[in-house]
Amino acid sequence: MTCPLCTADGGLAIVRTPQFRIVRVVEGEEARRFPAFYRLIWTTHVAEFSDLSASDRHLCMDAVTEVERTLRALLAPTKVNLATLGNVVPHLHWHVIARFDWDSHFPSPVWASALRELPVDAASRLRLPLTRVDEALAQSFSSASL
Amino acid sequence: MTCPLCTADGGLAIVRTPQFRIVRVVEGEEARRFPAFYRLIWTTHVAEFSDLSASDRHLCMDAVTEVERTLRALLAPTKVNLATLGNVVPHLHWHVIARFDWDSHFPSPVWASALRELPVDAASRLRLPLTRVDEALAQSFSSASL
Repeated sequence: MTCPLCTADGGLAIVRTPQFRIVRVVEGEEARRFPAFYRLIWTTHVAEFSDLSASDRHLCMDAVTEVERTLRALLAPTKVNLATLGNVVPHLHWHVIARFDWDSHFPSPVWASALRELPVDAASRLRLPLTRVDEALAQSFSSASL
Repeated sequence: MTCPLCTADGGLAIVRTPQFRIVRVVEGEEARRFPAFYRLIWTTHVAEFSDLSASDRHLCMDAVTEVERTLRALLAPTKVNLATLGNVVPHLHWHVIARFDWDSHFPSPVWASALRELPVDAASRLRLPLTRVDEALAQSFSSASL
């Protein structure tokens, strides 16, 4: 079996470093409902977070934190959700999702059933266009010592 | 509003340090379906992972990793799931969940709909009694330099 995260970006690539890339989820129901949905995808094919060395784990979470900080600063979400599951694609990747009290599932996890439907496109309710968030992320990673 | 994680352990306490405690989820549907379900609960009431200092974040994830390693070593799960959501209780806590290909939801997240029902108690399918896992966790934290 070929790994889909070894053979494709798995989203719109925003940041690339030797150790990881950061992508925005742009396809499917998830992107429609949760537009500020980013993933950090580790470059090396490992399944579990504990497969990384201590320094790689710290680097990985520093990067996840940088994504979280950018989402908080620009979009003021009600909450940020972080998760690494990998049950379907066991290649280490972290979900970083800005959640809003008005989104279709809040306060349920994004993987649960929807609690409501939005009358308008979710992306249009964000403070800023997502391309601005993408740019800020790219900028923060180019200036951060990550 | 009082915070339920400031006023109660939020599970069966296995490990306590000044910075965090580790509990096993023992009540409700989650515990019945996913018996090897642990949580790291940060002591200080902060909402987001990025509210922690860099050293606290590293400490926190080193501890999460230690839980993951213990679950992998003792139970050989199909996958470990890590998540910090906090939409309902915005006090920093990490879910560390051993998942098995036979569990009621695999490969879906534990927060999605069940895909099957188990004919027997899920805990009885684990390699070891959970009290042994609890003991191993307590031991690993007493010997680890965390």
